[in-house]
Amino acid sequence: MTSPLPIGATIGILGGGQLGRMLSMAAARLGLKTHILAPDAAPPAGEVAACVSRASYEDTQAIRAFAERVDVITYEFENIPAEALDVIEDICPIRPGRAALAVSQDRLTEKDFLNGLGLSTAPFAAVDTLLDLKAALARIGTPAILKSRRFGYDGKGQVHVSDASEAAKAFAAMKGAPAILEGVVAFTREVSVIGARSTDSAVVCYDPGENTHKDGILSRTTVPARLTMAARTDAVILTGHILNALNYVGVMGIELFVTEGGLLVNEIAPRVHNSGHWTQNGCLVDQFEQHIRAIAGWPLGDGARHSDVEMTNLIGEDIARVGDLARDPARALHLYGKAETRAGRKMGHVNRIM
Amino acid sequence: MTSPLPIGATIGILGGGQLGRMLSMAAARLGLKTHILAPDAAPPAGEVAACVSRASYEDTQAIRAFAERVDVITYEFENIPAEALDVIEDICPIRPGRAALAVSQDRLTEKDFLNGLGLSTAPFAAVDTLLDLKAALARIGTPAILKSRRFGYDGKGQVHVSDASEAAKAFAAMKGAPAILEGVVAFTREVSVIGARSTDSAVVCYDPGENTHKDGILSRTTVPARLTMAARTDAVILTGHILNALNYVGVMGIELFVTEGGLLVNEIAPRVHNSGHWTQNGCLVDQFEQHIRAIAGWPLGDGARHSDVEMTNLIGEDIARVGDLARDPARALHLYGKAETRAGRKMGHVNRIM
Repeated sequence: MTSPLPIGATIGILGGGQLGRMLSMAAARLGLKTHILAPDAAPPAGEVAACVSRASYEDTQAIRAFAERVDVITYEFENIPAEALDVIEDICPIRPGRAALAVSQDRLTEKDFLNGLGLSTAPFAAVDTLLDLKAALARIGTPAILKSRRFGYDGKGQVHVSDASEAAKAFAAMKGAPAILEGVVAFTREVSVIGARSTDSAVVCYDPGENTHKDGILSRTTVPARLTMAARTDAVILTGHILNALNYVGVMGIELFVTEGGLLVNEIAPRVHNSGHWTQNGCLVDQFEQHIRAIAGWPLGDGARHSDVEMTNLIGEDIARVGDLARDPARALHLYGKAETRAGRKMGHVNRIM
Repeated sequence: MTSPLPIGATIGILGGGQLGRMLSMAAARLGLKTHILAPDAAPPAGEVAACVSRASYEDTQAIRAFAERVDVITYEFENIPAEALDVIEDICPIRPGRAALAVSQDRLTEKDFLNGLGLSTAPFAAVDTLLDLKAALARIGTPAILKSRRFGYDGKGQVHVSDASEAAKAFAAMKGAPAILEGVVAFTREVSVIGARSTDSAVVCYDPGENTHKDGILSRTTVPARLTMAARTDAVILTGHILNALNYVGVMGIELFVTEGGLLVNEIAPRVHNSGHWTQNGCLVDQFEQHIRAIAGWPLGDGARHSDVEMTNLIGEDIARVGDLARDPARALHLYGKAETRAGRKMGHVNRIM
């Protein structure tokens, strides 16, 4: 095991949103400092960090200065430019490491990686040309979803294709970006597993949560998920496969489709995950502290759940409900302090203990 | 009810130690910013605050500038100079208010206040001269404790008097400071109640915790305390009396002696309290968030306890045990990030779920 970061050491975080904010607070609970690097003027994470640098992720000079001032670097989003990684890797550890980023930055690489591990995914095909798309639609059928291979989140960069005749229009919507066609899977529910792996290769999973989306954005996670014991076991085993194959250090979110034929892996995220926010009020060590423990070379928490939880995102104008929600003794509030309310913007979340 | 602070508002905190640090994190959970004012170069609370001002509490110019930049002011210690309070009260609310500070800054005023409410305390007498002390010892008897009226905490400024012949030596140890002689009470145990009162006069109490001290410093709090239902009820009622009498807003820690004749009030602290740290892992809304909710004019949490907890302070070299403690799945760590370990210094605490 790498020697653990001492109390008072500094963790660098790329990204200053709510995930960075909650990571910062978890680090502080363990006596560790954080330094946020983000392009924003007043990033939410900056309000609870020892230090903030404002810079673009493309600014390699700023990234270098940042890396020289911290003991380990982590991130709250997966689209870190390769040049930034090159600079960082020369100076200090970045966790989770490059293999996880390479896989999760590109939907095609990700699906190939997962299939290579023997894990099932939705049927898919690479789409670089309209001809590719037509061939893919012929093979996979409709409905299907055309997605940009990179830089997609919360349903962005995606087009639903309900009939092969829509191919040209869908292809045009990708604006020349490399894409992937994914078949729409008939699933009974969507669940996710939050897994963690430490520097000494220990793996810990939280109980799977059951997710509901609205307009392509996670709306609600309920724990425990309605799963058979067999599916529950499968979920843990496949999480271990993925984490070990990537020699992963940190927390990962793994989205799964529950189908009649078993579990399919929808997507992996090499970071703390919105569907793991329930752990803040359901577990003694939540996903944020778990991630900090992992990247700091500390022992992991055991992931045990002491309460059933329903996590609901507060999106856009939902934030106006806070006054009422604060009165409910079964609800814990987690607000991100974002100055501006915008439609579709994640403003906070609420964990209801059941 | 005063209109509640909106998300994004700023809470000023006088003091930058671990209490300010944990208050800052609680404020951030509710989407509120904090601004710390403290004389220290690198206060622990500064690492999780949106803003830090370094200034003495006597620097009324700095206090004025600070008050002008925040929406409400609170504090993590009771010895705020009267001049600072004068400046602040002209500019923004300070919560808890002046009445609570006046009572808790002076052991004599405090005891008079409590007795005036009909609450029992240890026998006591004001000691300004050696003659006073001799008369007090004759009336109260020994063993007794001579304490400075102001600026004492964690057993500092206190002399144990086991026999009347020690009067002169004990008096000399006070170095001319106004003092109070307190009779030593035969108690079966010491408990404390963490109470809260909101801007609309709602009162909420957490379950009493049972405290163990070592070398005059709190060592352990165990919840629930071993108390009869009658004593438990008394504790809640007297807490309500005290909070209402002071028209209090915020969290208060009340230390009680359990005696054969009932509960005696030992001390009150107009702030979050070390003996309430167990609430972080025993309740959905902990004492820090409760205090922030109160001073922000938000509704209080209900104080319900979901778990039994044993809180142990990590004092001085205890911090070296963190590596082992982190491996125990029943323990949650709360470390203060203090750079320097000193004997008697509070470095962190551990909540063990039972």
